[in-house]
Amino acid sequence: MLDLPFLPFCVLLGGLGFTCVAFVSAWCQHWRGGFAVDGSAQMFNWHPVLMVTGMVVLYGAAALVYRLPPTWRGPKLPWKVLHGALALAAFGLAVLGLVAVFRFHNDHGTPNMYSLHSWLGLVTVLLFSCQWLAGFSAFLLPWAPGWLRALYKPVHIFFGSTILLLSVASCISGINEKLFFSLKNGTTEYKLLPAEAVFANTLGLLILLFGVLVLGALARPSWKRPDADSPDSCQVPAPLWGPAG
Amino acid sequence: MLDLPFLPFCVLLGGLGFTCVAFVSAWCQHWRGGFAVDGSAQMFNWHPVLMVTGMVVLYGAAALVYRLPPTWRGPKLPWKVLHGALALAAFGLAVLGLVAVFRFHNDHGTPNMYSLHSWLGLVTVLLFSCQWLAGFSAFLLPWAPGWLRALYKPVHIFFGSTILLLSVASCISGINEKLFFSLKNGTTEYKLLPAEAVFANTLGLLILLFGVLVLGALARPSWKRPDADSPDSCQVPAPLWGPAG
Repeated sequence: MLDLPFLPFCVLLGGLGFTCVAFVSAWCQHWRGGFAVDGSAQMFNWHPVLMVTGMVVLYGAAALVYRLPPTWRGPKLPWKVLHGALALAAFGLAVLGLVAVFRFHNDHGTPNMYSLHSWLGLVTVLLFSCQWLAGFSAFLLPWAPGWLRALYKPVHIFFGSTILLLSVASCISGINEKLFFSLKNGTTEYKLLPAEAVFANTLGLLILLFGVLVLGALARPSWKRPDADSPDSCQVPAPLWGPAG
Repeated sequence: MLDLPFLPFCVLLGGLGFTCVAFVSAWCQHWRGGFAVDGSAQMFNWHPVLMVTGMVVLYGAAALVYRLPPTWRGPKLPWKVLHGALALAAFGLAVLGLVAVFRFHNDHGTPNMYSLHSWLGLVTVLLFSCQWLAGFSAFLLPWAPGWLRALYKPVHIFFGSTILLLSVASCISGINEKLFFSLKNGTTEYKLLPAEAVFANTLGLLILLFGVLVLGALARPSWKRPDADSPDSCQVPAPLWGPAG
């Protein structure tokens, strides 16, 4: 498509990811009363911030590690550790994000897990936990045989993109739901499109754009490591004359 | 990944697509009062049915045309016409789906285009209209030069997947929103998870599964036509000894 090199794209994407985090934080701080850890609505506010930061932005960064040209040379292990660590950090934020919303619901006598958003969000986080554990077991622990890595690698890649798609759909449905909850007759109604609604709708579109750009970058053939179809993954320094095996 | 041949996968996917249409129709018929064309809530009910049928199921079918092995041989023109016709039918249903919701809003004095769902949905349909027109102009009209087709083809492919992703996110947010609207204090509340909520949440997950499977099938290298990277697209019969150019 556009003949954009990967690194400038990364800078743009990083800026967009930062903007998403800034937008969701500003929304919760400016319109929703800020943050707390006391089970109040201010505790709920951690939920969108942690989910967007973890399951979208940090997850996107983890997914793109192997598109960095320096990862194509030399030993793979440090890059695997970086990929796994970023994903683990994303997962940690997602778990904290779940704690925030469950605690808020429980303290207010609101049932958990009834909306489509909650079903989808939980499926996404559960899939992510399986993905991380299976990836760690197959690619980072030393005893997985080569045939297992070769078998599992395309599955891991497929679910990597799928989980990001589910994350984005969860965020969109969550922002939409939160605005219907928050903007009611008492305040300015959502349907009168107050500034908060424009701001949070824009956040939703920015998150979508971020997700689409990450998925597009992952699918772009010329940005894949040259030996991307190899089963895996020797963890020793490569010969200087060619890419790592 | 799984070594599943494309045609059995298509049968499964077709069954899943049919299930999605059946579910959304049954939801609107059984719990939301059925269908009408009089601007009432029964007119609104056409909106989810037409959007799921058009922007997800029919769109998915159109996207997968070139994965059918018979399309890899012989002249491309009939398959292009099929691809374009399925996409046009999907677009037609989407426009009718928009008419249903705008007419319902207008007849009830409800503002249009305020929710994130509506923003995202309109962006999706507008992108789809650009995609169809550009695809028709570049690949079906005979006067587009080869360099233009070569330049545009990866853009068309990228936006083909992107629009499906946006459609799925629109459906999820729309179902979630509709359930919050419909299941209020007067009826059984959404948060008490009545049968309708379980049914429509399940519909949302089925739509997601359908979208993920189509996007996965599109990305799967072994299901792409062997000359998928060629710029395009002679529209004459191919020699018998090889694939069409």
